[in-house]
Amino acid sequence: MRNVDTYTPYGYIAGMRKDIKASCAQRLQRIEGQVRGIARMVDENRYCIDVVTQISAVRAALRRLEEQILQDHVAHCVEHAIASGNKADQRKKIDELMAVVRRADR
Amino acid sequence: MRNVDTYTPYGYIAGMRKDIKASCAQRLQRIEGQVRGIARMVDENRYCIDVVTQISAVRAALRRLEEQILQDHVAHCVEHAIASGNKADQRKKIDELMAVVRRADR
Amino acid sequence: MRNVDTYTPYGYIAGMRKDIKASCAQRLQRIEGQVRGIARMVDENRYCIDVVTQISAVRAALRRLEEQILQDHVAHCVEHAIASGNKADQRKKIDELMAVVRRADR
Amino acid sequence: MRNVDTYTPYGYIAGMRKDIKASCAQRLQRIEGQVRGIARMVDENRYCIDVVTQISAVRAALRRLEEQILQDHVAHCVEHAIASGNKADQRKKIDELMAVVRRADR
Repeated sequence: MRNVDTYTPYGYIAGMRKDIKASCAQRLQRIEGQVRGIARMVDENRYCIDVVTQISAVRAALRRLEEQILQDHVAHCVEHAIASGNKADQRKKIDELMAVVRRADR
Repeated sequence: MRNVDTYTPYGYIAGMRKDIKASCAQRLQRIEGQVRGIARMVDENRYCIDVVTQISAVRAALRRLEEQILQDHVAHCVEHAIASGNKADQRKKIDELMAVVRRADR
Repeated sequence: MRNVDTYTPYGYIAGMRKDIKASCAQRLQRIEGQVRGIARMVDENRYCIDVVTQISAVRAALRRLEEQILQDHVAHCVEHAIASGNKADQRKKIDELMAVVRRADR
Repeated sequence: MRNVDTYTPYGYIAGMRKDIKASCAQRLQRIEGQVRGIARMVDENRYCIDVVTQISAVRAALRRLEEQILQDHVAHCVEHAIASGNKADQRKKIDELMAVVRRADR
């Protein structure tokens, strides 16, 4: 289990920035509620296509969340690797981003 | 709020088949747990890329669920529209599937 | 090699409608030109990211073309299957659309 | 029109590596042939779904090409930015990759 602390001996970057973290937490709570709502729809025998439409909406919300986290990641963790001049860390950051590209690209 | 009952005056098709419904409910419960797990990761300042990877996994699980529901939909609701010979219902079913294609296709 | 003629004993539906066919042909010609343009970019050592951006643009153009063809398919071939009341043909059309959904959905 | 030369005053990295460039050129030629084949299918009134399937195949081939180019880009251009220690260039490379992620991710 990796933790940002290992990258921040001085506690300079401790995970996401506070405001981003709060916004993520809020979004995830909303998404959890949406998933519960879909379970209710299934239980109430709601029309399949309406269920599918709701699932798509949750997928889109997760995609937007991913993008927000990646943007924050680049603005902080990746920027930290650049500012530090640590080439090994820079290569690691690039490899991680490429893994995300490959997956998104499918 | 549409409900399959409106399509099934004789109660022949009441929502998803029982076994599909149980499997969907179970999957949704697991997905809800995964979303809560991601919220915990954010709270514990876990590494951004690990959070993003988990979000992708949930999106993939939702995609598979959508597909299962669509398959069941075709095997039941769409098949019902075909068997009934009701052309208006058949056209409606096709339009709904096309809306799903358009969205998935982006 | 399937050919729409097999579905249209009276020549009523012979492939795409004339105007759709012309529009598809024109789009494909433009896409062929774009692909040649990308080959030229590679040959001229143009910047990788610019090449990737062009490839994405062609993929988007192909996606739009797919959607146009599917819409025409629904308005003609699928509508023909519904109007004819041929249940076997209707089931075939649905299975084909589902295969497209599955692929697009990935 | 950007050209890799502007990034390589000493001619160290001149576009893609020779073997990658040849492989890209070959793939693009094959893709151009596939696009022409699709135009022929449309012209011959081939069945819509078969045309759509072919278009999907070309989109997948383009996606694989994008990935190959990106991998080469990271191994060369991005690696060059890291090795040089040029922070401005590193930030630029990251921004470009993020633009690709955002587009692929949609």
